[in-house]
Amino acid sequence: MSEVNASNPIQYTIKNEPFYQPVGDEVELYESAYATKMPVMLKGPTGCGKSRFVEYMAWKLGKPLITVACNEDMTASDLVGRFLIDINGTRWQDGPLTVAARIGAICYLDEVVEARQDTTIVIHPLTDHRRVLPLDKKGELVEAHPDFQLVISYNPGYQSMMKDLKQSTKQRFGGFKFDYPKAEIEAEIIAKEAGIELSIAEKLVQIAQRSRNLKGHGLDEGISTRLLVYAGQLIAKGVPAKQACRVALVTPLTDDVDIWDTLMTAVDTFFE
Amino acid sequence: MSEVNASNPIQYTIKNEPFYQPVGDEVELYESAYATKMPVMLKGPTGCGKSRFVEYMAWKLGKPLITVACNEDMTASDLVGRFLIDINGTRWQDGPLTVAARIGAICYLDEVVEARQDTTIVIHPLTDHRRVLPLDKKGELVEAHPDFQLVISYNPGYQSMMKDLKQSTKQRFGGFKFDYPKAEIEAEIIAKEAGIELSIAEKLVQIAQRSRNLKGHGLDEGISTRLLVYAGQLIAKGVPAKQACRVALVTPLTDDVDIWDTLMTAVDTFFE
Amino acid sequence: MSEVNASNPIQYTIKNEPFYQPVGDEVELYESAYATKMPVMLKGPTGCGKSRFVEYMAWKLGKPLITVACNEDMTASDLVGRFLIDINGTRWQDGPLTVAARIGAICYLDEVVEARQDTTIVIHPLTDHRRVLPLDKKGELVEAHPDFQLVISYNPGYQSMMKDLKQSTKQRFGGFKFDYPKAEIEAEIIAKEAGIELSIAEKLVQIAQRSRNLKGHGLDEGISTRLLVYAGQLIAKGVPAKQACRVALVTPLTDDVDIWDTLMTAVDTFFE
Amino acid sequence: MSEVNASNPIQYTIKNEPFYQPVGDEVELYESAYATKMPVMLKGPTGCGKSRFVEYMAWKLGKPLITVACNEDMTASDLVGRFLIDINGTRWQDGPLTVAARIGAICYLDEVVEARQDTTIVIHPLTDHRRVLPLDKKGELVEAHPDFQLVISYNPGYQSMMKDLKQSTKQRFGGFKFDYPKAEIEAEIIAKEAGIELSIAEKLVQIAQRSRNLKGHGLDEGISTRLLVYAGQLIAKGVPAKQACRVALVTPLTDDVDIWDTLMTAVDTFFE
Amino acid sequence: MSEVNASNPIQYTIKNEPFYQPVGDEVELYESAYATKMPVMLKGPTGCGKSRFVEYMAWKLGKPLITVACNEDMTASDLVGRFLIDINGTRWQDGPLTVAARIGAICYLDEVVEARQDTTIVIHPLTDHRRVLPLDKKGELVEAHPDFQLVISYNPGYQSMMKDLKQSTKQRFGGFKFDYPKAEIEAEIIAKEAGIELSIAEKLVQIAQRSRNLKGHGLDEGISTRLLVYAGQLIAKGVPAKQACRVALVTPLTDDVDIWDTLMTAVDTFFE
Amino acid sequence: MSEVNASNPIQYTIKNEPFYQPVGDEVELYESAYATKMPVMLKGPTGCGKSRFVEYMAWKLGKPLITVACNEDMTASDLVGRFLIDINGTRWQDGPLTVAARIGAICYLDEVVEARQDTTIVIHPLTDHRRVLPLDKKGELVEAHPDFQLVISYNPGYQSMMKDLKQSTKQRFGGFKFDYPKAEIEAEIIAKEAGIELSIAEKLVQIAQRSRNLKGHGLDEGISTRLLVYAGQLIAKGVPAKQACRVALVTPLTDDVDIWDTLMTAVDTFFE
Repeated sequence: MSEVNASNPIQYTIKNEPFYQPVGDEVELYESAYATKMPVMLKGPTGCGKSRFVEYMAWKLGKPLITVACNEDMTASDLVGRFLIDINGTRWQDGPLTVAARIGAICYLDEVVEARQDTTIVIHPLTDHRRVLPLDKKGELVEAHPDFQLVISYNPGYQSMMKDLKQSTKQRFGGFKFDYPKAEIEAEIIAKEAGIELSIAEKLVQIAQRSRNLKGHGLDEGISTRLLVYAGQLIAKGVPAKQACRVALVTPLTDDVDIWDTLMTAVDTFFE
Repeated sequence: MSEVNASNPIQYTIKNEPFYQPVGDEVELYESAYATKMPVMLKGPTGCGKSRFVEYMAWKLGKPLITVACNEDMTASDLVGRFLIDINGTRWQDGPLTVAARIGAICYLDEVVEARQDTTIVIHPLTDHRRVLPLDKKGELVEAHPDFQLVISYNPGYQSMMKDLKQSTKQRFGGFKFDYPKAEIEAEIIAKEAGIELSIAEKLVQIAQRSRNLKGHGLDEGISTRLLVYAGQLIAKGVPAKQACRVALVTPLTDDVDIWDTLMTAVDTFFE
Repeated sequence: MSEVNASNPIQYTIKNEPFYQPVGDEVELYESAYATKMPVMLKGPTGCGKSRFVEYMAWKLGKPLITVACNEDMTASDLVGRFLIDINGTRWQDGPLTVAARIGAICYLDEVVEARQDTTIVIHPLTDHRRVLPLDKKGELVEAHPDFQLVISYNPGYQSMMKDLKQSTKQRFGGFKFDYPKAEIEAEIIAKEAGIELSIAEKLVQIAQRSRNLKGHGLDEGISTRLLVYAGQLIAKGVPAKQACRVALVTPLTDDVDIWDTLMTAVDTFFE
Repeated sequence: MSEVNASNPIQYTIKNEPFYQPVGDEVELYESAYATKMPVMLKGPTGCGKSRFVEYMAWKLGKPLITVACNEDMTASDLVGRFLIDINGTRWQDGPLTVAARIGAICYLDEVVEARQDTTIVIHPLTDHRRVLPLDKKGELVEAHPDFQLVISYNPGYQSMMKDLKQSTKQRFGGFKFDYPKAEIEAEIIAKEAGIELSIAEKLVQIAQRSRNLKGHGLDEGISTRLLVYAGQLIAKGVPAKQACRVALVTPLTDDVDIWDTLMTAVDTFFE
Repeated sequence: MSEVNASNPIQYTIKNEPFYQPVGDEVELYESAYATKMPVMLKGPTGCGKSRFVEYMAWKLGKPLITVACNEDMTASDLVGRFLIDINGTRWQDGPLTVAARIGAICYLDEVVEARQDTTIVIHPLTDHRRVLPLDKKGELVEAHPDFQLVISYNPGYQSMMKDLKQSTKQRFGGFKFDYPKAEIEAEIIAKEAGIELSIAEKLVQIAQRSRNLKGHGLDEGISTRLLVYAGQLIAKGVPAKQACRVALVTPLTDDVDIWDTLMTAVDTFFE
Repeated sequence: MSEVNASNPIQYTIKNEPFYQPVGDEVELYESAYATKMPVMLKGPTGCGKSRFVEYMAWKLGKPLITVACNEDMTASDLVGRFLIDINGTRWQDGPLTVAARIGAICYLDEVVEARQDTTIVIHPLTDHRRVLPLDKKGELVEAHPDFQLVISYNPGYQSMMKDLKQSTKQRFGGFKFDYPKAEIEAEIIAKEAGIELSIAEKLVQIAQRSRNLKGHGLDEGISTRLLVYAGQLIAKGVPAKQACRVALVTPLTDDVDIWDTLMTAVDTFFE
């Protein structure tokens, strides 16, 4: 058990360079955004590399990274902190957002649209000229460390009338659009991460592309880069490609028998 | 009362080989998935042997198994852990997922689709390249033990628009499809588990198959292997087969008088 | 005040033979079910004797009985147990289900369909081959005592699409169907319990039967055996039969003036 | 401040005979019901004297009375009791139902249909042959004192599909129907309680009867006996009858201008 | 900080005569109602002086006044009291209603229709012949001080099918109807409170009357007396009347551009 | 960590003059409103400078400012204060509204319409002639400091039937309408805040104006002044204007591909 002092920035540092293949000018743009400490919003489909990008940028900029997976039951206290009962009465414990603001980390709120409104409102004073975080329950006003930056991600495909960011939240962020990498780049990523031949990786990417064309026609999302890596890893362990695709690409994606058959037919086209 | 140290892996070890009859290549495929520590999703109808399969694989791989039956009132804290009030103030207690991540167990979240979203989101960082579990409330980042693997099950028949896994969760798992075993295998299982003659077990399986054809036509699910074992056990205790079927196969399945009669007629065909 | 040690089985023992009039083979069937420790589900209308039957069987088998009346606000903790704050910090207190599993009692969950899902899911590991109860909050895995058995009741007339047991719960139980006793038996029960003449009891049963025919035609349920005993008890105290029927059989059943008149007319037919 | 020991029956005793004017055989019938300790349900419109009747019967029988006004936020713990944190850890405190069961009081749950289901389910074991109250959280089984009786009230006019007692609750009670008293009796009650002449009281009753005919035609309820007493009291203080009726009978009843005028016209008929 | 002993009536005494301009016989009627301690309900639109009237009557009668602004998240405990954790364990703290009942104050529940039902039910035993407040959680029965009176207010314009007082609550109160004061009286009030000339106050009242005619035709409520005083105060500070009306009368009332223009046109008619 | 004594007004003082460009008579009007301590409501679209205006006025008036970002999970206790458990039992901690009332600060409730009703009701007694804040849970009545003023903001575009201020709340405030600044002023603001040439700032403003015309035609809000400053800051860091506009103006605003193209075309018109 590696219990740590929450305020120690070392533990949040990315030690090794994450593998990230740029797809455009996003790295330079992000560096400029970070230079002005502009809050940043990453948009794009599931598993296309948004989290990996933030990790890569944190590593490149040499800044600690604190990631919070948002969900609909998360409260503002989960971000900001709370009082715990101690032998000496109540003791305040900073939440991840407060820690990030104090130590000057990049704070990454993953899938922020899932969070309840109080969680998104709490970031407002950190995202305008004030750059402060009021801990109302504690009566403290935390001024953000000069290195602190806020990054959020969300998947536009999910958002509905009921669950969307308010305009007054959206208009506090610069926006980066992400998509699946181009075929050649995606194949390279898979070959490298799974340890398989490029020719096999290319076939996997082609299967994925067929599934992505089915988005909105029976599939909510196409096969992600992450699942392609899974398939590659099974193949690298000696599992026949067809079975690997069934387990890693087709079965997780759909419960519909017809769509399942359609996808398996696509698999058969490339691996028999 | 056998109170135990939660971090002691011994207690979670499967001591005796569970009876499991493979129906395809699922055992070898699972071994490959485990070798890459790929998170695994088991899909299939009620009582077809998903839980038994995980238990068997944990025994075969010699790994501890921690099972959590999910439900709609379960919170992320139920999985991850919480602070308890102690004589010295608050004391942290690991939840089952945290224990599994620390000791390198297979963690099996049964019927995960029943759980609230925060429960499913909490597993995200454990199911990508990071393999970490942030205990936000404690300010600790648990790195998963190299032997740790996450397995979830769900029943596609149950899932509705309101209650389904998010794509960003689904696309973190390799998928295994399960169904009831083939007739001969199912009969063998029942004969062995209930201690009855194979000929009687075969009749029970035939009754079950008739009920399974009624799925969607008045029945939500067909008779499960588990109920067949119950019927067999009553017969082994000397209960006449017809009464045993009434108690174990028909009455639990339906409140509809007509369906009840239809099923009892099927019973009459095999046992009079 | 008779405060007791919760783990002391004596207090849950049925001291005197409950009056139970069998209506078929249910006693022998239950004995076989208990011999295999099969979980049992009792189905039937309000006040037809399900609770009495369990009590009788517990007495006959010489096993302690722990009854829990389920309701929609009951939580899993109400069944399993919880931490209480004590002078030495938190202290765990077993819930009724845990006590039953430890001491080998029959645990009877009355009207289980009323309970929230977490309450019904919590019984799953106790109702399959594992026969364990994981106390996740405490980090303890309770192995059920060999004498432990789980019994649930529910009234099929109540269940709706919104409130029904899940198939994965239903298929863990053998089922016993109950109905009101046959007229002669019911009259005997009433005569004995209320201390009135059999001829009066028979008239009461006939009134009840008329009301039971109105089920679905203005009444949600017919007059139960319990209400007949009430009417008998008032008669035994000297209340004229007509008034006794008005108070005990008619007024509790309906707020509809027409149905009330219909039922009073039925009363007038037998008692003037 | 008269802080008392909750288990001391004296404080719940009705010291002075409440004024109660019987309207039929309800007093004798109740005595018989009490003799068998049959749980009793009082039905009738707002302010017609149900609460007064219970008080009167408690006084007549010489038994302590514990009244609980039910509401939709009341929990089972509010009735049964709860643990309080004390210098020595947690301390159990009996709720009003538990106190009543221990000391042998009549426990009157006013407007029980307003309560949540767990509140009504909790009374089940007290209302059948067991006459026990399981304090699940404490692990204690309270056997009801021989003098204990449960009485509930509800207003059939309020009950809707969403908010009604379950049949399995209703069929645990003998029922008493109440209505407004007959004109002569009602006038006597008002004259006595308000200290006004009978002739004025009779006029007030006639106004009330007109309003009661408007029930379902613009009014949810007619003017209750209680409001008539209010009007009488204002008159006794020298307020002109018309103003007294406006304040006490008309304004509280309706926000509709037309209905208000209709009722004031009725007032003008009797008092100008 | 003027921390006070909650049971000290002095702090709740109205020290200076509040300015109140009677509009009819309401002062005398209230005195009679208070003489019988009849619970009183004040009905009328926003800002027409209901709260001021209670304050005035409390001052006139020389009784302490405890005001509670009701809201939909208020619980019965907020009114009645609760246990607080203290160095010696739990300590009971009276809520405002309990304090009022003990010290004999007038307790004014402002906008009671906003409160949850448990809040309104809790006042029942204080509003009938019993005049008691059961502190169920504490096991104490508070008998109301002879001077205690309960007053509630509500705005009939707000009430809907979903949010209305129950008849069984309404029929516990005498009712007083309020409306905006007559033009001359309202102008006098404004001139006096804002310190402006009567001629200007009269113009403000005329603007308000135009807005009140728009109620139900684009406005939920007309301009209240309170807003007229605001406009007068700005004028007294030297703000031109037109701007003062824009800020105090028009902008707060509506977000609709057309209605806003209509109202500003009305302003232009009187002030250019 | 700059932990401070919550009651110390210094920390809430605005040290440096915030940059604020008046657009009309709002500064003088506000000074008059503050002179009478009239509660003030600021209305206007997202990011048009409402918060900046309050900050500026607080600085100009030399009063401390306490800002609270409201949200739908905020409770009255979050504003007013709560009891915390301490070594000596419970200790009261003032919330931001109470602190403001005690020290005579301007209390700014940002986006108050998001808050739950109890949060808005709690401000009522502070916004009429009483100017008090009852701490019901503590039994204290805080009289507001003579310098205390309450300011709320809300965005009329957001408000719906379900989420609007009650009339009884609205009619407690004078109202100030805000909109985006005029083109020349807005360009000046951007040039100054981002450190770019005025000619570029003017182009940015023109892009924003096109987007504001799309409000209600595919966009919920136009581009705010804040986003224009973001774009300017990126340009000042050397990012080409087109990319800066894509990141700061277009991507945050919309997920719709067509609207996105429309906006990028507008960008192309000014920067190629």
